[in-house]
Amino acid sequence: MSPIAVPVHADRPVPGGLLEAFWEYDRALLANDVEVLDALFAPGPDTLRADDDGVLTGHDAIAEFRAARTQIPRRRITALWMRVLSEWQVYTTARVRSPGGAEGLQTQLWTRSDGRWHIAAAHVTAPRPAVDPTVWRVAGTPLVEGGVDGPLRDETIAVKDLFAVAGVVRSAGVRQMLAGQGPAEEHAAAVRSLLEAGADVAGVAHTDQFAFGLSGRNADFGTPANPAAPDRLPGGSTSGPAVAVSRGWASIGLGTDTAGSIRVPASYQGLWAMRPTHDTVDSRGVLALAPSFDTVGWLARDADTVRRVADVLLPPATATEDVTGVIRSRSAEVTCEESVRAVVDRYAMASSVIEAPELPDLEQWTAAFRVVQAAEAWREHGPWLSDHPDAVAADVAGRFAFGRGVDAEQEARARAVLRTARAQLIGLIGDGCLLLPAVSSTVPRLNTDDESLERHRAGTLRLTTIASMAGLPAVAFPAGRVGGAPFGLSLVGGPGREHALLRRAVELATAIG
Amino acid sequence: MSPIAVPVHADRPVPGGLLEAFWEYDRALLANDVEVLDALFAPGPDTLRADDDGVLTGHDAIAEFRAARTQIPRRRITALWMRVLSEWQVYTTARVRSPGGAEGLQTQLWTRSDGRWHIAAAHVTAPRPAVDPTVWRVAGTPLVEGGVDGPLRDETIAVKDLFAVAGVVRSAGVRQMLAGQGPAEEHAAAVRSLLEAGADVAGVAHTDQFAFGLSGRNADFGTPANPAAPDRLPGGSTSGPAVAVSRGWASIGLGTDTAGSIRVPASYQGLWAMRPTHDTVDSRGVLALAPSFDTVGWLARDADTVRRVADVLLPPATATEDVTGVIRSRSAEVTCEESVRAVVDRYAMASSVIEAPELPDLEQWTAAFRVVQAAEAWREHGPWLSDHPDAVAADVAGRFAFGRGVDAEQEARARAVLRTARAQLIGLIGDGCLLLPAVSSTVPRLNTDDESLERHRAGTLRLTTIASMAGLPAVAFPAGRVGGAPFGLSLVGGPGREHALLRRAVELATAIG
Repeated sequence: MSPIAVPVHADRPVPGGLLEAFWEYDRALLANDVEVLDALFAPGPDTLRADDDGVLTGHDAIAEFRAARTQIPRRRITALWMRVLSEWQVYTTARVRSPGGAEGLQTQLWTRSDGRWHIAAAHVTAPRPAVDPTVWRVAGTPLVEGGVDGPLRDETIAVKDLFAVAGVVRSAGVRQMLAGQGPAEEHAAAVRSLLEAGADVAGVAHTDQFAFGLSGRNADFGTPANPAAPDRLPGGSTSGPAVAVSRGWASIGLGTDTAGSIRVPASYQGLWAMRPTHDTVDSRGVLALAPSFDTVGWLARDADTVRRVADVLLPPATATEDVTGVIRSRSAEVTCEESVRAVVDRYAMASSVIEAPELPDLEQWTAAFRVVQAAEAWREHGPWLSDHPDAVAADVAGRFAFGRGVDAEQEARARAVLRTARAQLIGLIGDGCLLLPAVSSTVPRLNTDDESLERHRAGTLRLTTIASMAGLPAVAFPAGRVGGAPFGLSLVGGPGREHALLRRAVELATAIG
Repeated sequence: MSPIAVPVHADRPVPGGLLEAFWEYDRALLANDVEVLDALFAPGPDTLRADDDGVLTGHDAIAEFRAARTQIPRRRITALWMRVLSEWQVYTTARVRSPGGAEGLQTQLWTRSDGRWHIAAAHVTAPRPAVDPTVWRVAGTPLVEGGVDGPLRDETIAVKDLFAVAGVVRSAGVRQMLAGQGPAEEHAAAVRSLLEAGADVAGVAHTDQFAFGLSGRNADFGTPANPAAPDRLPGGSTSGPAVAVSRGWASIGLGTDTAGSIRVPASYQGLWAMRPTHDTVDSRGVLALAPSFDTVGWLARDADTVRRVADVLLPPATATEDVTGVIRSRSAEVTCEESVRAVVDRYAMASSVIEAPELPDLEQWTAAFRVVQAAEAWREHGPWLSDHPDAVAADVAGRFAFGRGVDAEQEARARAVLRTARAQLIGLIGDGCLLLPAVSSTVPRLNTDDESLERHRAGTLRLTTIASMAGLPAVAFPAGRVGGAPFGLSLVGGPGREHALLRRAVELATAIG
């Protein structure tokens, strides 16, 4: 609809220049002319912009959000209402419509100063699809009903698209996987356990392609916004379940963690997460990435839900299972941003943390992990990828290609390194636990370039692979905000110490509060 | 969160009395104290309230909407921003959170006059679930991908929950049906045809229980709001697909029409719809209600989409297949509201419609239809309903009970009446078509009592069953608004005249414009 054809309902004569400014803004929005948009938003710290992802305050925060935005609105205004408050203040509400026919709203408070109109506040309801396609592949109300009773009654699960869910075709985040496959005949073991415990399956949510990534970007299905920081990446590879939980669309995110895929999105979004001891949770019906390190993990908005899922999926906690002291390893933190280390400092100070001895070989260990992980990943998916050369994005393809190039001797050497690493780490941690940043940096913005993202990933892998290479359990928990986005810490404990780790994490979180 | 704990971010000192009024409104909202809410909205025709369902203008329209609302908000305010425009004008945006954790927004423009604060305008973004549970049972992005090419490429289908969709358990609008059933192994024939033509299946959407109703109310899954009239019923039984199409969540609604189940929701929501000739579209994989009258039908936002689906699902249109004159039957309209007859008058005048002779037996014909329909419905579902006595709502159970009571002789008599009716109607319509109101009244409000609703249903059945008892095709098309909500007309033609009917409906719609 051209501006001229849009019906305008004003309660009083519209002050001069306002309609011109209104339509100038609209043209700039559709053209993604960020400069004009920034100029039309009022300067100063009180300017307000609210949408489904949250509330931003201040002209600069709004401009940053806009600069990072990767999806440009395509909606058109179909009707406009104006309440004229004075010659210099007007409230407008516009009805908007997406190309597909879905409708939304845009309310703006316009104010005039020095003869120019600016938006002082805005509230946008974007036209919504039936289901957020960046989060879900399939969802229901519920998709699968759980047992009528049980400890997880009233809970809802967002299942990562690596798990078999009866009736659903699995994509593993790769659209080409959907063709030539039938729906799963039965649920993955972990899904079945949670259903039997009374939880419903809300839906099947996205993953990084083949779960081989930590960013949450997906070339086939899009990148969901991080509800805790709308201009940032959601984290992955358990991206969809994490966002579903953050949004309140599910109370439990069921995912996997090979090298941080549960812990990273939890940290990026301020959630609680559990990576259990390797091989403790039944992984039948879960698509593998690197079986030596793959675990079934889960996340939630609070520690108690994480614990109740642990009660269902893990062997009963034993009385002896506890963790004593908390240790810290500065060797692990060397690639972390300063602001991240500062958070660890704060927690360490508040809870008499002991400094661990140096881990001089950590660099080598991480490298060995990446060799074995990539080699196993190629063994799992190489044949299919060879037949589908353009099925995954370049960064994911690059990781698989690295695995293809690993020869037997190189892999054997890397496995030997990991055996040493595992023994040393288990010895170091003993009955205690290791406090680590869950990630190495503030949450990357949506528009971060590939090279910087790879740096973030490398820094984070140095932290996350400690639990992975040793097969140890890890809990991630929220530790406030760093650089304008959530940030999480992690505790790594001895085998089978999941419950104890979670208790200790709650103590730490409470101590800092 | 209690008001006292909610963080308030104001850019200037908040004028006296405003916070008190703000929280008074919030308490009244949670208590559904309609009187207080109405008093706090500014009087007059310019007061504005916008939400996902649309924009309401004027204090009285807003009050009516509120009175008819059946779902009470349960969200809590978690943060509040205020832009103080003057001592008598304040713009507020509140973040709200649902009990499940989903977040929403509430923006209000408060104005003070005579010392009292009122809301002059509001924009509400209700916390949204992952999937609207009143519309969908299962949805995907898409749920099932269609063929890579074909005449319906880029179209998306909302499938009524009576059709088999591979991998999905069918509910027929009855929750107890879900237990003890496996997912469908293959698609219903019509679903398969549309997929092969390139359309995607967006999801499976709700129906009145066993499709035995015209209101769109569903005791198990809730009643979706009518996007074209938020305080009204959506119409049924193809309620979910119709709302999905109205909302832009799908471009095609695939449903069934036994006694109006496609035509009624189309009329209530301003959509185009097709009920084809009985037995023309393959109904394999569709749960039956009354096989003598059941048809597979479809609806869309425009005539062209209805036509393109017809091209896929119907036999090719023949050159001889056309409709000549348009006739009108005042006998059919006697139970219609005056305002409804006025619309028919207007269309009749604009298109030289010929008055049909009286149909003195129409009352008896409709009664006979209801006898046979109910008897067949009981044969289809009686055994299951006997085993599940509380599975359906009282009004639906009543219709089945009527069928249970029909004896063989009574049914035979009714069938004889219908044979006569069919012959007379086919003779009457001949090569022409019959113009009818699609429904007998303005769209009932959400809070209409059961008795009034049954009257609406009886009046509408007198119109809709004309095509049903004669096995004839019918097209429903939008004819503006009556009594504040959409209203549709219908054209009934001879067997196989679907394409011709649609063309004639487009001509009529265009003539009136």
